[in-house]
Parts: sequence; C-alpha cells; structure tokens
Amino acid sequence: MDDGPASAGGPPGDRVATLIGAATGGSIRAIARLISMVESGGDPAAGVAAGLLGRARGAAVLGITGPPGVGKSTLIAALIGRYRSRGARVAVLAVDPSSPFSGGALLGDRVRMGEYSADPGVFIRSMSSRGELGGLSAATAGAADLLSAIGFDVVIVETVGVGQNEVAVLRVADTVLLVLSPGLGDGIQAAKAGILEIADVLVVNKADRDGVATTVRDLKSMVALGRTPGAGQWRIPVLTTVAVDRAGLDQVLDAVDAHRLHLERQEGSGSRAVRRAEAAVEALVLQRLQAALRAPDGRAALARAAGQVADGAADTHTAANRVLRELVGG
Amino acid sequence: MDDGPASAGGPPGDRVATLIGAATGGSIRAIARLISMVESGGDPAAGVAAGLLGRARGAAVLGITGPPGVGKSTLIAALIGRYRSRGARVAVLAVDPSSPFSGGALLGDRVRMGEYSADPGVFIRSMSSRGELGGLSAATAGAADLLSAIGFDVVIVETVGVGQNEVAVLRVADTVLLVLSPGLGDGIQAAKAGILEIADVLVVNKADRDGVATTVRDLKSMVALGRTPGAGQWRIPVLTTVAVDRAGLDQVLDAVDAHRLHLERQEGSGSRAVRRAEAAVEALVLQRLQAALRAPDGRAALARAAGQVADGAADTHTAANRVLRELVGG
Repeated sequence: MDDGPASAGGPPGDRVATLIGAATGGSIRAIARLISMVESGGDPAAGVAAGLLGRARGAAVLGITGPPGVGKSTLIAALIGRYRSRGARVAVLAVDPSSPFSGGALLGDRVRMGEYSADPGVFIRSMSSRGELGGLSAATAGAADLLSAIGFDVVIVETVGVGQNEVAVLRVADTVLLVLSPGLGDGIQAAKAGILEIADVLVVNKADRDGVATTVRDLKSMVALGRTPGAGQWRIPVLTTVAVDRAGLDQVLDAVDAHRLHLERQEGSGSRAVRRAEAAVEALVLQRLQAALRAPDGRAALARAAGQVADGAADTHTAANRVLRELVGG
Repeated sequence: MDDGPASAGGPPGDRVATLIGAATGGSIRAIARLISMVESGGDPAAGVAAGLLGRARGAAVLGITGPPGVGKSTLIAALIGRYRSRGARVAVLAVDPSSPFSGGALLGDRVRMGEYSADPGVFIRSMSSRGELGGLSAATAGAADLLSAIGFDVVIVETVGVGQNEVAVLRVADTVLLVLSPGLGDGIQAAKAGILEIADVLVVNKADRDGVATTVRDLKSMVALGRTPGAGQWRIPVLTTVAVDRAGLDQVLDAVDAHRLHLERQEGSGSRAVRRAEAAVEALVLQRLQAALRAPDGRAALARAAGQVADGAADTHTAANRVLRELVGG
C-alpha cells in the first residue's frame, strides 16, 4: 500500500480537477463519475479526496433509517420538496448494506424517476454493497464529503435498519432520523438498543393510522429510559408525520436544524468536521486493509498463513498477526 | 498489538487447557466459557486458539441461511434429530449479524428450551453482533473451530439472509444450505445474485403449501442460468421439505454428505481445512485492526488524522494510510 499519489499533478490529477470543476458547476454526469471513482476505492478514490483538499464543506449531512414499509421514501421525497422550497440543493445517497431478503425498499428509482428527475438542484444515487464489508461505509463517507465539497447544502444518507453496517454508514451523518410507523411493537422492542445509540430524532410516519398514540408513548418512554438529558444535552424528540399528505414536515426540519445548532453550540462547527473526518478515515483504514487482503500479495500471505494453521504449525491468532504485519508493516 | 502470548505456559494457559479438557469431556459449562473467551477476542481468544493447536478437526461445518419465516428453526431441529439418530454430536451456532428490524427469528431459545435441552450430545448457542463489524465472523469461525476440535461431529452455523456479513460468517462452513419457502417470489429475485454465490444446496421448506412447484421451477432455472456445471463440478440441488412433518430430511442429509464427498474429491480433505483456516485468519486480521482502532493508541491516531483532514492538511486517504502504518507497522 502506498500513499495513493493519484493527485501528483499528472494527467489523472488534471482529469480529476476538471471533473470536480464540472461537478461544482452542476454537471450530473461529472458528479456521477466522481462518485463512481469514490466507490471503486484505491487510487481513483484517493485522487478524488486529494482533489478536494482545502475546499469548504458546508452541507448538513442527514442520516435517515428505519425498517422497510414505514414510508421512508415518501418522507424523503417530501423533505426534498421542503428543502427545495428553501432554495437548498439536496443530494440523496440511498445505501443498502443489508440482506437482499429485507426487500431493499430504498427510494432509488422511485424518486429518481419521479418529481425531481428534471430538477438540477436534486441529485439521487443508489449505493449498493458490491464490495467488501468496510467498503460501503468508506464509499458513503467519501461520496457525502464530495457532495458537500462541490456545493450541496443538504446530503441525505438513507439506509435500512440499524445493524452494524448501518451504524457504520450513518456515522458520517450529523443528525440521524429514525423513521417508524404505528404498530411496529415487536420491531421497536427489538431495535431498542440500536435506536437509543444512533437516533437524534424519532419520526412516527403514517400517523393517520391506528395505534399512533401507543407507538409515540412507547417511544417516549424508551427515550426517557435510555438517558435523562442533563442541562445542555440533546433531548431526542418524537415527532409524527403523514408524509403522503406532507403533514408534520416542518417539525421534522425544525428538529434537524435544532440538532445542528445544538452540535455547533456543544462542539463548535469545527468539531463536527473532525467527527465526520474521523468516521471517514476509520472506514478507509478498514477498506484499505480489506483491499490489501484481496490483492495478490494479500491472498498469498493468507494462503501461507492458512496452510500453517491447517498443518498445526501456527494458531489462527498468531497467523493473523503475521499477515497483518506482512501487509502493512512490510 | 503483540502475538497474544496467552498460551505461554503460565496460569492462563493452564486454565485454558483445563477448560478444553473439560469441554472435550462434555462439560457444557466449559464449552460455554471457552466460546465466551473466543467471543471476547484479544488475548482470551488467542489463548483458546493456542490451546487447540495440533488437535484434529473432524466436524462437518454446515451453514444454514434464509429469510425469516421460512421455517429454518424447525428444519434445524429436525436435522438435529436425524443427526442424533446417527449417533453424531451436534452443535448449533445461531448468528444474527443483521438489523434488529429483521425480526431476529433465529432458533435460539426456542430449540434450546425444547426437545434437546436435556441431550448432552446437542449444544446450542446464540451469537449476536455486540462487537465491531468483523468481530462476529472471527468469533463464529473461532467457535466453530473450537467445537470441531473438542469433538462435535456436526457444527451448524445458522444465520439470516445473505448480506455481506452473512456471507462472511458463512465462509466458515463447508456446505451452505439456503432455505426458502413457496411464494417468496420477490425475495428470491432479490436474493438471486447472493444465492448463486453462496448456496451449495437449496431447500424449499413448507413444501405442502401452494406454489411450491413454481418456486422449485424458478429456483432450478436460476441455478441453471447461474452456471452450467462441467464434469466433476457441483450441481446445486433444489430439494423440498416439510420440516414440521419431518419430511424430506433424508434427501437434505444425503445432499450435505454428497457435497462433502465432492469437496474431498475435488480438493482433498486437507484443502478443506486450509480453506476454513483462511476464512478464520482473514476474519481475525480485520478484527485485530478494529480492536486496535478502538484501543487508546488507535483512538488517538484517528483523532490526530481527523484533525489534519478537518484542517485541510491531509486528505482522508493519505490520513488513513498513516493511521494504518502507525497501528500496525509499530
């Protein structure tokens, strides 16, 4: 592994600079190309990162998660409309790190083909988990950073569920909305631990349905049980929306704004950038190691180590440490 | 990171040796304790691995996956019964790496509390994703290796779905069964790519329901589309079961046996051990790095790197390489 010199002035660096210029000017094609470079990892991704050095990152990064069927797509479409009416440019990264069995009901094509398809102020992109375990977090962090650096005001990262991968992906967000709907009793119980760790705002969508009062009450008591916010601490609000009717959206945007203000007051806007950079660097560290394991040298080191383990010449932990040193220390 | 000297003769190594002796003798308490050490990672896990050095691993490791609701628990309970009637000792690791939203319908307590709770030839353990991303794969590989080394004849690794984490967890298995049920049309389509990569045997459970013929036909044509097996290649069978009635089980066990024979003929039984060791070492390499990132030195290195990124002094990729070298290169 070297330091990824893709920015070292030559033609690749020039090409990246040209693409970044075009993307900043609003070229959807250039943005899509840059995100593909970020997704592919390695030198192309390093080149994009180097090309963005020194640019300001002004976007609010919003994570939106929740189980399939609660109306996340509709809510996001409605939120995009609200942000657009404020004049903000909005990008959406729809990330699906979970099992294909979950149904994969991310907005993706539905919204892309819909009302915002002709709006140059809206960019929507699906990111799927083709690559290795850590790759999706790194790619999402890189893409969110890119979109922020080329001038989007709001970057929405949509994902399904609050498993480990989702939590890793959502670490890039400043504010995380967890969307639920009435009558998810068991699901809510199961998600309990995850919710309290990750959500900054709880939204009960489809609030015109039966059982909304119970769901809201349950969530409020869960929030209360989780932690009692002291003075100056964030108090997780429980909001209700009917996204299809565009009802309750202002309260959601107000809560997002309030949370951002809270973060800036608590940490300063600088620390927000540091926290986001930390998530991005951590994801990249893992991705780089995984890429090294898949490269010919890595495969060879693993095969040697596995042979020693199978022969009883080394235990798995000793072998793993050797591989790690060979790949990185070398 | 050091080489994990927990086996270096002193009291910890003695204690592990005592536990391994008791576990081999059938002590459920000792097995549970050793698995907890494997789960906790670091020195305890390295100590267990070192303590097992040189022991034979005779178990067939069977991965069983599929969406919630297809009857995996019932099928596994039925398979355990069949294996027990052959005199085999069976261990089950129920792994849930996925989102809590998936419902988490793993067998876990249901079977543990049920018909096999008093049978010393059956060991069932749930493993959940408390730790970091790579931790669950490493822990599952370590636990399966332990169970094999202390004399279990069959180790079943149960998981939900075929996302990235599940694929990583199931790499430890010699043979992977994907369980589906009639009328999962969309789910099957969505899972298509994953299925063809991971499954060695397809089982349509609840085969007394409507639509079983269609599901079987769809699966067979998917398998046929995926790859045409040449001479000596494995042909993925599509089987049907009604697990509640214990119907179709012999065909499943025959397919598992046939697949194992196939592997041994193709690769020799030695290569099977190498392949399994490779999965275990790879998972451990990632786990070790994640543990290093969470340790004080790692957190400090990440914070420094993030500060440089936020200040515009470094891009994320350059910073990630620096962190990697600091943590591993020593």
